[in-house]
Amino acid sequence: MEQRLTIVGLGVADLAVSSAFYEEKFGWEKLPASTNDISFFQLNGILLSLYSREKLAEDATVDAAGTGFKGFTLAYNTRSKEEVDHVIAELEAKGVRIVKRPQEVFWGGYSSYIADPDDNLWEIAFNPYLPLDKKGNAV
Amino acid sequence: MEQRLTIVGLGVADLAVSSAFYEEKFGWEKLPASTNDISFFQLNGILLSLYSREKLAEDATVDAAGTGFKGFTLAYNTRSKEEVDHVIAELEAKGVRIVKRPQEVFWGGYSSYIADPDDNLWEIAFNPYLPLDKKGNAV
Repeated sequence: MEQRLTIVGLGVADLAVSSAFYEEKFGWEKLPASTNDISFFQLNGILLSLYSREKLAEDATVDAAGTGFKGFTLAYNTRSKEEVDHVIAELEAKGVRIVKRPQEVFWGGYSSYIADPDDNLWEIAFNPYLPLDKKGNAV
Repeated sequence: MEQRLTIVGLGVADLAVSSAFYEEKFGWEKLPASTNDISFFQLNGILLSLYSREKLAEDATVDAAGTGFKGFTLAYNTRSKEEVDHVIAELEAKGVRIVKRPQEVFWGGYSSYIADPDDNLWEIAFNPYLPLDKKGNAV
């Protein structure tokens, strides 16, 4: 296996609500391949897909039941500490739930968390030790 | 916010076990920045990180309790249908739990699922409608 990922797939309770979240709060654009059943967002070399949680479980042939912490986070790293504050202020102004306010963390970064409508956790963070290229790729 | 992701972070029960899974079963190499507390794998423009589930929840200031389906999947897309069979055969030979055997799916692809030690679901799939560039990026 090559050392790469193609899609992060999120199982959502309401596709319209979740799609609107990523479009309106994050300001992202869906791919034209999106339908009423699935939304795709082109990220940096990978896709984010939103799909019914029930159907995602069915596709994977697993039980859809599940509660509590999902045991994963998605991180959006900024290019400065100030940018973390800026992004969080913008998201909060748009009504996004702020889970952890921006703060210095023990490993030397500056980090915060927000939740999407399905309580998927996005960390918005500045990591001075993790360089990003011009396109925002971790390199 | 730019339309991009930096890190997929998985909260794991046993870091050594999970790191060994990605190193030995997937054949991936950890970044030198990895420590006894966190493992990083450089993927295509993003990182995969493995971190204690308890500590990940603590970092996000949420309760670590959670059971059942996590509501997300990670997809590794191949360049052919045959490659799906090949990857799954290799993983199965290494003792990886196959959740769904490779099969034709309604949207025109060929898909399978495996589970990592924390029941994180990886879809191994060929999607004839999703082109990959030479580096394996979805474009």
